Amino acid sequence: MSNPQLARFSINQMTVKQLSMPELVDACRELGVGNVGLWREPVQTYGVEETAKLVRDAGLTVTTLCRGGFFTAIDPDERAAALADNRRAVDEAATLGTDTLVLVSGGLPAGSKDLRAARERIADALAELGPYAEEHGVRLAIEPLHPMYASDRCVVSTLAQALDLAERFPAHQVGVTVDTYHIWWDDNAPAQIARAGAGNRIHTFQLADWTTPLPEGVLNGRGQIGDGAIDMREWKAYVEAAGYTGAIEVELFNEELWARDGREVLAETAERFVAHVIQ
Amino acid sequence: MSNPQLARFSINQMTVKQLSMPELVDACRELGVGNVGLWREPVQTYGVEETAKLVRDAGLTVTTLCRGGFFTAIDPDERAAALADNRRAVDEAATLGTDTLVLVSGGLPAGSKDLRAARERIADALAELGPYAEEHGVRLAIEPLHPMYASDRCVVSTLAQALDLAERFPAHQVGVTVDTYHIWWDDNAPAQIARAGAGNRIHTFQLADWTTPLPEGVLNGRGQIGDGAIDMREWKAYVEAAGYTGAIEVELFNEELWARDGREVLAETAERFVAHVIQ
Repeated sequence: MSNPQLARFSINQMTVKQLSMPELVDACRELGVGNVGLWREPVQTYGVEETAKLVRDAGLTVTTLCRGGFFTAIDPDERAAALADNRRAVDEAATLGTDTLVLVSGGLPAGSKDLRAARERIADALAELGPYAEEHGVRLAIEPLHPMYASDRCVVSTLAQALDLAERFPAHQVGVTVDTYHIWWDDNAPAQIARAGAGNRIHTFQLADWTTPLPEGVLNGRGQIGDGAIDMREWKAYVEAAGYTGAIEVELFNEELWARDGREVLAETAERFVAHVIQ
Repeated sequence: MSNPQLARFSINQMTVKQLSMPELVDACRELGVGNVGLWREPVQTYGVEETAKLVRDAGLTVTTLCRGGFFTAIDPDERAAALADNRRAVDEAATLGTDTLVLVSGGLPAGSKDLRAARERIADALAELGPYAEEHGVRLAIEPLHPMYASDRCVVSTLAQALDLAERFPAHQVGVTVDTYHIWWDDNAPAQIARAGAGNRIHTFQLADWTTPLPEGVLNGRGQIGDGAIDMREWKAYVEAAGYTGAIEVELFNEELWARDGREVLAETAERFVAHVIQ
């Protein structure tokens, strides 16, 4: 039974990673959730074709596949391996029927202090991957990660940097991921969302709330919607003013949520979405 | 005995907070360190006048006092208390003979999600504090903190934001702190350093290196110079190209360094400064 207030809601699989693929699909059906964002590892575990059939049979839309990227290696063999893996990610996205592959670009290689050169290597990789993705009907969505990940996960830290990279390529090949968790602090982000929208480069919009204290390693502390410092309606208004009308994914990495019953977390997340984003 | 390679080196007291004030002064004398950045709490513990005499007798220059700020409260009583405390900080800076009071602006008040309004309250406070500081020969140095502190410590996350605030006031009242730890990820920062220098608003330049994984709470993981991702010479070149010729403070918050012998840490920090900044 679909819920009209959840029409644009998409549950990113990582939010409820304790659910198996069939459990996730069942829970979505029960709650009237029609959209999911998937991750490569659980998809591969269940099988790419098998997942595609499962979600198709359930009538679910796959809003994104997370994630490709990690393009910043210097070593030629590592670079070739990363590109090969990203081509597989494009293939998987196409098989799953999603048009968007989210990219986390990669951090500084060991011993390097050169962010600028690392960003250029991302551009080099996009030049190879973009046409391949286009052939498969998949758009690449560069995700700027919060600057606290700049050294070890993603040297692309702002929407402006992501767009500087994306705009070297056609919009149907390369755009950006707008994720509140990573950009909420940035007073330049609203203008960059407008820039992204004007270029048809908002390929996905994701939500997570900002809560403190951050946990060690700062990976798994993304807050449930409404628990933190981010005004979700404000950011939704920015992307809508920029012309974005697509799905809104909630993607939380949160040890406390993962320790709870996954169906309960999915229900809570849907409720929070309605209360803090839609109403 | 002064060391010419350490002529611009300043040891921020927090780096070796395990040292008492007299121990710090002794260690500086032994190593030929002529500059210190002080913190209000240990200064108050030892006594403001007593500290002033101690450092003056030792021939040390006090490069900064850390820190004032925390201007973002909404409650009028809290705001009045913060302003009164900041006037005391100005008085202490003047007594210590330093011309620079570093400001950490404060985070979001409980329940607020409005970064813009919080930044405006900082401007309101600076309008009151700036003239008071000027009367006492003290310049205020707004420190943008890394965006990972935006909710709980400092809503000023970039040099651009800090300068947008500072430039509402005369440069001899309000400038900025350039600290590598907070801005190293920002490709816009070099241009902002040039902007700050052109306006005579680089009131202090501080160093810490970026190391991962970040510890829980992300406060006390600032890396020893040379241990992390930041090219210190590059940032020194930016501030120098912008006309900054003053002291270079090393300010590390690091549990591992605090657990070691303070004199050993000071000696190591001076060595790292020479190896990674000067040579």
